[in-house]
Amino acid sequence: MSVLIVGTTALDSIKTPKAENPRLLGGSASHAAVAASFFSPVKLIGVVGEDFPKKYIELYRRHKIDLSGLQIVPGKTFHWSGEYEVNMNNRRTLLTELGVIETFTPHLPETHKTAQFVLLANIAPALQHHVLDQMARPKFVAVDTMDLWLNIALEDLLRLLPRVDCFVLNDSEAHQLTKEDNIFAAMKKIHKLGPKYVIIKKGSHGSILSGPSGHFICPAYPLQDVCDPTGAGDSFVGGMMGYLSTARGSIEKNFRRAMVYGSVVASFCCEGFGLNRTTKIKRADIDKRVRELEKLTKF
Amino acid sequence: MSVLIVGTTALDSIKTPKAENPRLLGGSASHAAVAASFFSPVKLIGVVGEDFPKKYIELYRRHKIDLSGLQIVPGKTFHWSGEYEVNMNNRRTLLTELGVIETFTPHLPETHKTAQFVLLANIAPALQHHVLDQMARPKFVAVDTMDLWLNIALEDLLRLLPRVDCFVLNDSEAHQLTKEDNIFAAMKKIHKLGPKYVIIKKGSHGSILSGPSGHFICPAYPLQDVCDPTGAGDSFVGGMMGYLSTARGSIEKNFRRAMVYGSVVASFCCEGFGLNRTTKIKRADIDKRVRELEKLTKF
Repeated sequence: MSVLIVGTTALDSIKTPKAENPRLLGGSASHAAVAASFFSPVKLIGVVGEDFPKKYIELYRRHKIDLSGLQIVPGKTFHWSGEYEVNMNNRRTLLTELGVIETFTPHLPETHKTAQFVLLANIAPALQHHVLDQMARPKFVAVDTMDLWLNIALEDLLRLLPRVDCFVLNDSEAHQLTKEDNIFAAMKKIHKLGPKYVIIKKGSHGSILSGPSGHFICPAYPLQDVCDPTGAGDSFVGGMMGYLSTARGSIEKNFRRAMVYGSVVASFCCEGFGLNRTTKIKRADIDKRVRELEKLTKF
Repeated sequence: MSVLIVGTTALDSIKTPKAENPRLLGGSASHAAVAASFFSPVKLIGVVGEDFPKKYIELYRRHKIDLSGLQIVPGKTFHWSGEYEVNMNNRRTLLTELGVIETFTPHLPETHKTAQFVLLANIAPALQHHVLDQMARPKFVAVDTMDLWLNIALEDLLRLLPRVDCFVLNDSEAHQLTKEDNIFAAMKKIHKLGPKYVIIKKGSHGSILSGPSGHFICPAYPLQDVCDPTGAGDSFVGGMMGYLSTARGSIEKNFRRAMVYGSVVASFCCEGFGLNRTTKIKRADIDKRVRELEKLTKF
């Protein structure tokens, strides 16, 4: 089954202590879509301006991403610029040019409305609502977010949570939302806001699931060299949804493995700037790291 | 086989946002010894003053800890006082009264010199050397440390590392020692200092092993309520050494499981002030959480 993904489609200018890369393909939907494409057909919902490089359209196409829901409109593509500190954990935004995303309204082609797996990747909660409003009856909906929406669109987000099956956020966002320092206490509170599955991402420490069958401690793949973590969280949730949409059997049965697959795609994402590394791997490379993670966690 | 443990035997006054507990039994050797006692006989090497409460001697005895290497000398027992912040991650030392530990010289009874498993729990590296100097030929030696020794006794510590099989330290200490932000890059550097096994502790994120068979990602047991993390690291390494000393088969074969057992004992430690919780559990409680961790990490 295919995965419908809405989120930002952006140009990212990323500076790390080692290098600087201007106007790479970025945005939550780009990362999530490429990640999901290793497992299942992807329908992308987003917007770009007329300045959007053709090579990035080609890149989406090479990943067999359905672009009939991608709007190309007059104006400039959303542009984000950020800089990482030496330890790669802290980043600061240097520049945000919203461009065409400022007036974006997602329109779903008819063929998209019956998608069964929906990923509301990081974008304004109002737009995430707008996509769900157009859907027939999806089987599984996951939503990702960021601190910005907790600050400026909390009500929209809180109205969204009862509408989704899975809420993915990172540890600092979970703390911001619940005021809980303890991750397990935070997840308990977040379940009460609606979602059956809650995933808290902890960067290089992996992620934790709280679901109907209890918790799952999902490992991160060990990396000795992190080049650029931008998009790792989007790759995680994209890979997870891609795997989940094609795996046989119940969602509950496949959920843990789906997270591990997402975790592995995220590890590749961190090894290159933007999507540079992720777009060079094959499904077999992912499978290999999943097998390694099995060995790395067995006792 | 028994485990010989040297380290501090202290009185800890611990303040958390929820409560304040004066003069609890503490110190690296106390925590490690109680943790190891669930798995194997323990020989404790340490020093206390004449003020050391009899009830704590009784506590050691209930755990069948051999006290023939515990010196009781005129003066005051080492007293540490600390305070935790709300998130339980940051603590600050309010007071350190060295007392009798200032002039401590470990003397090993003859029966102790042939111990096969030796844990040099956190104490001055010079004293850790002094214990090793008296040993015949131990099969496996592990050493723990703290930031203080990296600051004021680095040379002693660096001379010690080629003498031990396993070096256990936390992530911030690993960074301090190697200047590496990446944990896996740090472990690679630490191997070059001597130890075959390197373990980096990451608190609630678990720990990572780098050993002859590669890495192992060791989970932390999920806790919704952390009462007092003092001694968790000592409990981890104590439980690990206790398990390792009695498990059948090669050290390499048992190492991962030993870490998981240590991790579980550490989880109990966090659930009470000082040793309050750890001293109330039974081996069966530990086994139960190990089985739970198996389920929590399986995919």
